[in-house]
Amino acid sequence: MNSWKPATALFVGAGSGLSASIARCFAAAGMKMALAARNADKLKPLCEEIGAEAFACDASDAGEVEALFASLDNSANGAPEVVVYNPSYRVRGPLLDLEPKEVAKTLMVTAFGGFLVGQQAVRRMADKGRGAIVFTGASASVKGYARSAPFAMGKFALRGLAQSMAREFQPAGIHIAHVNIDGGIRNEARGIVDKPGKPDSFLDPDAIAQTYLHLVMQHRSAWTFELEVRPWLETF
Amino acid sequence: MNSWKPATALFVGAGSGLSASIARCFAAAGMKMALAARNADKLKPLCEEIGAEAFACDASDAGEVEALFASLDNSANGAPEVVVYNPSYRVRGPLLDLEPKEVAKTLMVTAFGGFLVGQQAVRRMADKGRGAIVFTGASASVKGYARSAPFAMGKFALRGLAQSMAREFQPAGIHIAHVNIDGGIRNEARGIVDKPGKPDSFLDPDAIAQTYLHLVMQHRSAWTFELEVRPWLETF
Amino acid sequence: MNSWKPATALFVGAGSGLSASIARCFAAAGMKMALAARNADKLKPLCEEIGAEAFACDASDAGEVEALFASLDNSANGAPEVVVYNPSYRVRGPLLDLEPKEVAKTLMVTAFGGFLVGQQAVRRMADKGRGAIVFTGASASVKGYARSAPFAMGKFALRGLAQSMAREFQPAGIHIAHVNIDGGIRNEARGIVDKPGKPDSFLDPDAIAQTYLHLVMQHRSAWTFELEVRPWLETF
Amino acid sequence: MNSWKPATALFVGAGSGLSASIARCFAAAGMKMALAARNADKLKPLCEEIGAEAFACDASDAGEVEALFASLDNSANGAPEVVVYNPSYRVRGPLLDLEPKEVAKTLMVTAFGGFLVGQQAVRRMADKGRGAIVFTGASASVKGYARSAPFAMGKFALRGLAQSMAREFQPAGIHIAHVNIDGGIRNEARGIVDKPGKPDSFLDPDAIAQTYLHLVMQHRSAWTFELEVRPWLETF
Repeated sequence: MNSWKPATALFVGAGSGLSASIARCFAAAGMKMALAARNADKLKPLCEEIGAEAFACDASDAGEVEALFASLDNSANGAPEVVVYNPSYRVRGPLLDLEPKEVAKTLMVTAFGGFLVGQQAVRRMADKGRGAIVFTGASASVKGYARSAPFAMGKFALRGLAQSMAREFQPAGIHIAHVNIDGGIRNEARGIVDKPGKPDSFLDPDAIAQTYLHLVMQHRSAWTFELEVRPWLETF
Repeated sequence: MNSWKPATALFVGAGSGLSASIARCFAAAGMKMALAARNADKLKPLCEEIGAEAFACDASDAGEVEALFASLDNSANGAPEVVVYNPSYRVRGPLLDLEPKEVAKTLMVTAFGGFLVGQQAVRRMADKGRGAIVFTGASASVKGYARSAPFAMGKFALRGLAQSMAREFQPAGIHIAHVNIDGGIRNEARGIVDKPGKPDSFLDPDAIAQTYLHLVMQHRSAWTFELEVRPWLETF
Repeated sequence: MNSWKPATALFVGAGSGLSASIARCFAAAGMKMALAARNADKLKPLCEEIGAEAFACDASDAGEVEALFASLDNSANGAPEVVVYNPSYRVRGPLLDLEPKEVAKTLMVTAFGGFLVGQQAVRRMADKGRGAIVFTGASASVKGYARSAPFAMGKFALRGLAQSMAREFQPAGIHIAHVNIDGGIRNEARGIVDKPGKPDSFLDPDAIAQTYLHLVMQHRSAWTFELEVRPWLETF
Repeated sequence: MNSWKPATALFVGAGSGLSASIARCFAAAGMKMALAARNADKLKPLCEEIGAEAFACDASDAGEVEALFASLDNSANGAPEVVVYNPSYRVRGPLLDLEPKEVAKTLMVTAFGGFLVGQQAVRRMADKGRGAIVFTGASASVKGYARSAPFAMGKFALRGLAQSMAREFQPAGIHIAHVNIDGGIRNEARGIVDKPGKPDSFLDPDAIAQTYLHLVMQHRSAWTFELEVRPWLETF
């Protein structure tokens, strides 16, 4: 069995928390990392730490996504062999209180941006006949919760995109995966920490990163399209 | 068992085919019908036939949807007790050939319009504590096909909306349902007719209408949220 | 559209509650009914009421199921055009306390009996190129609850059987359907009645029966394989 | 993040192919392996190769499964910290040709044995508050194919068991996982090899083993309950 070892990766929707863990984990596994976010300045410390490049990009803007990939084409590392699409936006509350504009924005950031990034990514991967794209889902990807319709719409749509891309591009050698993050992610900066007597009741971002890494390293004879990660104490 | 008998219904996304069958079927069951489409002129013959009112409305435009419901409020029949959301738009083909604008439009018409109509509909139904809203899905609601990512995105999103609305509004007495139309609909005007030796291999729109009618008439103790309709010869 | 109107039906697993409602509903729609249960004596009052025939049969015993259908073949009504498979057995509690024998019995009554009855039923329907078989599922058909593994095993298995039979026999004109009864059924005899302020919070068996009837009457161009019924106040 | 490193594992349903790959992979990761099969003799070469112990056991027999675990309790390695349930049996063909006895056997080996092994396994793991059990599923776990009802019944039931056990035992520290092997496994001994121009079109058992290993090593803050593995060229 001849395993694939990707050399470069792009993480779209980078910030703190999960994205930093994944970036560190991928870098430790030998990938040259590029990180993209609307505000690239905040990425500097992480980029310095892991030797990554930062790019400013609004993932829901077709022109900016095209420019991002053009920049990568011209960078030292070239087009990424692995891409993670992570951005989401959400507005919650009683459906009757929701602003239509906010609902549209949720769809654009959470799902349409996934299309834009996915399209640019496969454009580069298709010729080489290899690559991996991971879409970050959530509980709302498979269950529409009350008072959270916009997020369900966006995450359902992203999963539909991922399925369609898997069916079109896996036979071309591009691994497409969808990860359902089915629980809250531990984030000390935001005060999301385990309660007494409930150790590991929030998702550890480093643990999630291990599973993202496993996915993008899978041999093409046994690809996983979809899995969920969930804390041991989470009900489902 | 005290059955509910709706008096009025609105069908959004009316045209020929399925929408005409549902409109006729609902009218025959005693509902006063309102039909909405971007082009209301084409609805005239059907409206005359079944005594329905026609309204012009772009379902993906928040202002037009609001105006549509305001018109209904002021009409003789008043706000509808039953609403069917049917519009969809799609662009197909290799993902690399898709225009981002067309993808965004697919999301807006297929899913965002469902939110707009659903929000206005429940605003009227919530006070009365009763009503029914049916969202028209497709095979692509639960399976993302290759070279059809935008439609999958739109129809997945619509299903997420329907689930979320069901969880929020069913306890308020509003029945939310999602119908997966899992096959081609017979349409003689467009040449979609059974092949020799394959009778009823396309969905008969009148048969689908019977199931829509059954759904909106269900007693609140035994509501169906989701079902699919599929020709006997269809593989799945 | 030329609707099918079945003349005879067999209900396996008859007793009180849902089975009586379905039997009455089907009889009222013009079907000559046969009812089967392990103890046929208890069926007498209902049989007299609706003019049905009662048969004793342990649905998990291959010989008894074969004999049941042989009796029907030789009866005045002949082989049934519609068959409902309803029996289930369950043992609940902490997995560590479960008796293996009881788990095996749960599988045999809940799922294996469905195979036995389904096989005999399609043997008669296949030649005529028409018929309908409905399998009664439960919440446990699609979700394995804690401390209820055996029932989940049985109901999941029954759903797998239903799917497989649908794919094999729908192209032969036999409609196969699976109904997920996703909530408790009102049963005054057993004290299962609505709490104050929660009207219709249990499934009304007469309401469920309307949906079973709709299913078996569907036109073959638009068959539903699966749907769920759920009270308006039920969380899901 | 403090990762768990299991010291012992039991593989039930061992033979050639996938089971040998998993056994080798787990042994290479440091686990002391025990292998069980109805015919333990055939396991000798593999056991010698990886230093594993072989046990004879009919997994569908409650007494034999109890005896297997009693033997393990008394062995040098003690009760296993990881258990994989792999056995299946199937009979295929037109439903009308199936022998009821063979259908019952399919349920017993494929699903009931999973219960027996799972029950004995958690009995040992529950006190320690840790462990992992993986159930081997198949395409038929989530889709009932025509002319293969018994296998669908068995694999659906096994998945129901796995879900129920996950909900009951994950909060007790025992990781339960279900793997859908969605494709054919390469097996040179049986002539299942790639066709010209279709490299890696069958699942490489060593690649699958990597994913099983990843699953049983996951940190409890981010457990995967379910995933599928599928060759890049497989349609789905």
